[in-house]
Amino acid sequence: MTDPVLAHALEQRETLLARLAAFVAHPSVGADPACADGMEAARRFLETRLSEAGFSNLQRLVAPDGSGQPAIYAEWLGAEGAPTLIVYGHYDVQPPDPLDLWHSPPFEATIRDGRLYGRGVSDDKGPMLIALEALIAFLEVEGRLPVNVRVFLEGEEETGSPSLAPILSAHRELLQADAVLSADGARWRADLTTINVGNRGNGGFEITVRTAAKDLHSGRYGGVVPNALHVLAGLVAGLRDAEGRIVVAGFLDGVEDPSPEDRAAIAAIPFDEAALMAQLDTAPAGEPGYSFLERLWLRPTLEVNGMWGGYTGAGGKTVIPNTAHAKFTMRLVPGQDPERVRDAVLRHLRASCPPGATLTVTDERGWSGAYAVPDANPLLLAAEEALQETTGDRPIRVRIGATLPLTEIVLGTLGLDTVMFSFSTADEDYHAPNEFLRLSAIDEGLAAWVALLRRVGLQDPADYAASRP
Amino acid sequence: MTDPVLAHALEQRETLLARLAAFVAHPSVGADPACADGMEAARRFLETRLSEAGFSNLQRLVAPDGSGQPAIYAEWLGAEGAPTLIVYGHYDVQPPDPLDLWHSPPFEATIRDGRLYGRGVSDDKGPMLIALEALIAFLEVEGRLPVNVRVFLEGEEETGSPSLAPILSAHRELLQADAVLSADGARWRADLTTINVGNRGNGGFEITVRTAAKDLHSGRYGGVVPNALHVLAGLVAGLRDAEGRIVVAGFLDGVEDPSPEDRAAIAAIPFDEAALMAQLDTAPAGEPGYSFLERLWLRPTLEVNGMWGGYTGAGGKTVIPNTAHAKFTMRLVPGQDPERVRDAVLRHLRASCPPGATLTVTDERGWSGAYAVPDANPLLLAAEEALQETTGDRPIRVRIGATLPLTEIVLGTLGLDTVMFSFSTADEDYHAPNEFLRLSAIDEGLAAWVALLRRVGLQDPADYAASRP
Repeated sequence: MTDPVLAHALEQRETLLARLAAFVAHPSVGADPACADGMEAARRFLETRLSEAGFSNLQRLVAPDGSGQPAIYAEWLGAEGAPTLIVYGHYDVQPPDPLDLWHSPPFEATIRDGRLYGRGVSDDKGPMLIALEALIAFLEVEGRLPVNVRVFLEGEEETGSPSLAPILSAHRELLQADAVLSADGARWRADLTTINVGNRGNGGFEITVRTAAKDLHSGRYGGVVPNALHVLAGLVAGLRDAEGRIVVAGFLDGVEDPSPEDRAAIAAIPFDEAALMAQLDTAPAGEPGYSFLERLWLRPTLEVNGMWGGYTGAGGKTVIPNTAHAKFTMRLVPGQDPERVRDAVLRHLRASCPPGATLTVTDERGWSGAYAVPDANPLLLAAEEALQETTGDRPIRVRIGATLPLTEIVLGTLGLDTVMFSFSTADEDYHAPNEFLRLSAIDEGLAAWVALLRRVGLQDPADYAASRP
Repeated sequence: MTDPVLAHALEQRETLLARLAAFVAHPSVGADPACADGMEAARRFLETRLSEAGFSNLQRLVAPDGSGQPAIYAEWLGAEGAPTLIVYGHYDVQPPDPLDLWHSPPFEATIRDGRLYGRGVSDDKGPMLIALEALIAFLEVEGRLPVNVRVFLEGEEETGSPSLAPILSAHRELLQADAVLSADGARWRADLTTINVGNRGNGGFEITVRTAAKDLHSGRYGGVVPNALHVLAGLVAGLRDAEGRIVVAGFLDGVEDPSPEDRAAIAAIPFDEAALMAQLDTAPAGEPGYSFLERLWLRPTLEVNGMWGGYTGAGGKTVIPNTAHAKFTMRLVPGQDPERVRDAVLRHLRASCPPGATLTVTDERGWSGAYAVPDANPLLLAAEEALQETTGDRPIRVRIGATLPLTEIVLGTLGLDTVMFSFSTADEDYHAPNEFLRLSAIDEGLAAWVALLRRVGLQDPADYAASRP
């Protein structure tokens, strides 16, 4: 028998789609100052819906210095004795560029072949509305929620969440809760029931190598002075051994090898590596001794994202470049300390500079550590049960190779763990043209959110505090 | 007692300077289509002077397909039994950009501190007029020249001489001679009497490395797919061993090690390597086992002139680039076959590509071999004697690390050797703002040209044919 709250939510499916279309029509591109009106319209849309649904204490939370985009806050705290969840989503979206590659206008939600197309439908307006409408269905049918909820909707996720930590820290009292339930953070695959239990951290810097006071003529000086591009190539190549292992001393400090149980669990996950390689038109690469998914989820990376120097225009120029640049980023795994990793890599690069070459750090990016939900987190366990109930499959625990700064920021500021419960999927082109959301995600998401909230409503808040090791 | 021809030429020094100023005022920038009038005015200037001085058979030589800038030709062939020289110069100049760095207008010849400033004064309008006025002084004082002369003044030297080989090949009958005497090709240093006996060749190509169908997200794929920038860095670094030796199989085929005599001669040349390194703010680099000048003159190079890929804008982008590019040029030494060197380097690069990576050659530059004047070339011997007579110092035989395509093109098309007898100096900023010519070069050049022509006039043309091994 269908849960009456879910039945109500499913009946309202067309209304939800219409609401999502109206939400998508507000171009809330946080990176583009010209979209300030779209950001404000998106905020008003959410505030109106939360207010009419019966949430209280509606307000905008801003960083203490007043900078950045406000987060929307609202609460419903009538479930005495039940856990309190912060329900997270974000209302800002990626820029729509390049516009000419879209098959329908990015800010007009359009259905084709069982998919809803439009900027933000997958990241994160669609998954966020699914979550909010599941909450609202409880209020509409039963007049109450099974759990206490603090809705927290960020406006800077796509621009690196610069205000998130300041906002959370400044409103620690208001945001008391037992865990964070995120409507952001895509499902891995459409063909497998999974739950994400961790993500890698990241960070990076840009270096400039300089080998002489100026560019030199390749005829008059070729063979007698260093070439900044040769030096840079040597630095990049020297980060790995011939088999692809990163050889930077200290880089792996704190990283534990996966246990036999972890390796067995990962090996059991159905995954067609060959099909993915064929689709990407490449061959596997990386650290020997680890499987594809182990490398992706459990091992750190050290990648050059951009590299340049010398003459890069048409034709040729017989120059020995005196400067060369490279942008590096790292993906970090549990156990790695971002600051120590940064220092280790820079120490290695500096020590590898030959005579006549100097290295300077010319830009630095934010550093964020890896995150893993504790195995026994009650919200994680409830989420697994809810997924098993609604999909029929026991979800497989997976990680993601990418970085979700939210998880580490929430842990660092509020001391709370986060469970990702978005119903978008990683292949939905959400940072690219023709972003889409599978329409099936609406029913799947509503069912899972209703089932999850019911289960959490039966839990003891004390179990949350006990779950973090 | 001063040679009466030289005495006459020196008396005309101010007239020569005025002529040079008028010549510089014609902006003959061959690379700039807007300077077509300047090119034509420069040609008319030369034709007028050659004609009024008594040269005959004045004509413009063009490539058979009619393309490109014509060369100016004129002859004086009244020295029966004496050798015939092609006297070479070029009337085109480098672009004057960046204009704002000039201290006086580039096309207004300006004297400051014993130097004449202006675009082309050093390369090659000044040295060319010195040569022509030395010839004309003979005609004015003695009514004849000691040697037969075919004046050949090119208009495409600064744009890579694309028409030079076609023009020479098409006019092989007209251009019969015993050697080429070039008024282009700068002296090495102002503080040392030298003569250049060889130059390195060159050539190059651009490669593109591709590792996947598209750029990939560094979180979702970091550690499991190849990175085009890592591959390119490995390719560039893999061209050399840890000590700096080029390890490309076949690269050094045909290159002979310098003889003990060659090494001793080079070691005897006064050269302050430390002062140069301090001036360039760098440290020496290159192949171990060879001195600085040996590396510069006698050893080939393999340099990356430009390298780029991935995200190179402000800030960061977490991308695994799927393409990377590099521009390579080589400087070749005697014994190296350009085509075989090209193939050897590409074979090495291709063989070094890891699985998943492909390499394509996306651009190719012209290839030209190294050149060396035969030790016993009579024009070289006469030039050394003339320099000893006029400077008091026995000139030191030097080479240049750069490439003068003229030498190899003349040898390939006409079978003639070339002696460089310019009186510009390599430090005169001739491809940069504030190009200058030392005023002392005028007297030095006139004296040396007069002395050289007298000596060649006493030579037997048969000795020229016998001098090439």
